[in-house]
Amino acid sequence: VTTARGHRPPQGEPVLDRAFALLRAFTAERPELNLTELGRRSSLPLSTARRMAARLVELGALERTPKGRYVVGVALWEIASLAPRSLGLRAAALPFMEDLYEVTHQHVLLAVRDGGEAILVERISGHGAVEILYRVGGRVPLTKTGVGLVLLAHAEPDVQQRALSEAAGTAAGQAALRRTLAGVRRDGMAIFRSGDPWQVVSVAAPVRDADGTVAAALSIVIPDGQANPRHLVTAVRAAARGISRRPTVG
Amino acid sequence: VTTARGHRPPQGEPVLDRAFALLRAFTAERPELNLTELGRRSSLPLSTARRMAARLVELGALERTPKGRYVVGVALWEIASLAPRSLGLRAAALPFMEDLYEVTHQHVLLAVRDGGEAILVERISGHGAVEILYRVGGRVPLTKTGVGLVLLAHAEPDVQQRALSEAAGTAAGQAALRRTLAGVRRDGMAIFRSGDPWQVVSVAAPVRDADGTVAAALSIVIPDGQANPRHLVTAVRAAARGISRRPTVG
Repeated sequence: VTTARGHRPPQGEPVLDRAFALLRAFTAERPELNLTELGRRSSLPLSTARRMAARLVELGALERTPKGRYVVGVALWEIASLAPRSLGLRAAALPFMEDLYEVTHQHVLLAVRDGGEAILVERISGHGAVEILYRVGGRVPLTKTGVGLVLLAHAEPDVQQRALSEAAGTAAGQAALRRTLAGVRRDGMAIFRSGDPWQVVSVAAPVRDADGTVAAALSIVIPDGQANPRHLVTAVRAAARGISRRPTVG
Repeated sequence: VTTARGHRPPQGEPVLDRAFALLRAFTAERPELNLTELGRRSSLPLSTARRMAARLVELGALERTPKGRYVVGVALWEIASLAPRSLGLRAAALPFMEDLYEVTHQHVLLAVRDGGEAILVERISGHGAVEILYRVGGRVPLTKTGVGLVLLAHAEPDVQQRALSEAAGTAAGQAALRRTLAGVRRDGMAIFRSGDPWQVVSVAAPVRDADGTVAAALSIVIPDGQANPRHLVTAVRAAARGISRRPTVG
């Protein structure tokens, strides 16, 4: 799990490593675990898992359900809400996202990059919006989403190179992706069509911090064929610029 | 800080205690700290703070800014987003909150109780909304907000008794608050006027889990005197019931 999330397992502080192994045992598919599952998924002996889980409950990082199962605690979320790249950014972005949402009543997404993936920081969706896979707090691929392409186009060369080799096996494929990224930088926006099975198109633009560095990406996702995505470009770029001017970004 | 957040400092796992002391050093007012500040605010020796902070950076729980200061990491937020009482609840609530937002373009709040306080899980606010203090991830008092009164009215007797003695010194004050809470339970909603300096009024209703237990509270907050809050009661109660029917709640 740790490698999938792009963080090296550190050496020499076993208690902390175990605590995070326990916390990382929870996933969107399995947000509620009993002690046996916790032990298995974190690769910890049952007695260690029990003791660590009890400590984490005392610290508010875990909570127990009425049935005695474990879930991630709202007090951990309270601390995590102070991450500038999650809720701080989101607070700056939300009024602009609301405006975009009212134009389409589909999806409006906000994402930041973490290593070779993007994390979805916010998503506003209507009742009747087309179904998409991505949830807030979840990871999205850099080369298969509009927000991802924007973040990748402005990433360090080594991140781009790794993404290019993973996403496109052939030299021709890599060259095509390189041209796409150059286009995203030149135009200040990305248009990405998902193809099957979702058949959605996203229009994405970069959000910059005070130094002009790309800190996040904003997008509208609509059903493909419903509206001309080019007509949404100005609205998305204007909203992304509006967010960039807010002092809380970066 | 730990006592203010309602969690006892646990005994016997000093590394974990120190790690959480470090994480709790960050606040909404000070989301970015240098090493000296980290040490002072977590009451740890500088060398310990440096070593722990480095580990937490490796684990993704902290990040370093280009200037070398520390912030809470988006990877911690990624784990915390799995807390059922934060983003799980929020995912169920958001479409209904959007609908309420479009009625007023003011504030729509969603909160859960943690000990003797409430934590704001979600807030939707327009550009032109009246200014209110509360931020997502922050704490709000049980006796001085609409969502807080709803949560308090359905809390265990000992939580109610503690809140009553803290909020209302005199026996007459306590009796008045008791009557208010009984009214909230009877009517299935709370109307709360903030008075100075905000002059807002909130209309709140309970969100229940599958067992009928009150899991959260939903509210609309509008400027006092702008609209009759009674006219919003049906909309808020209907939205709260809609959220309660979603399988992800509780």
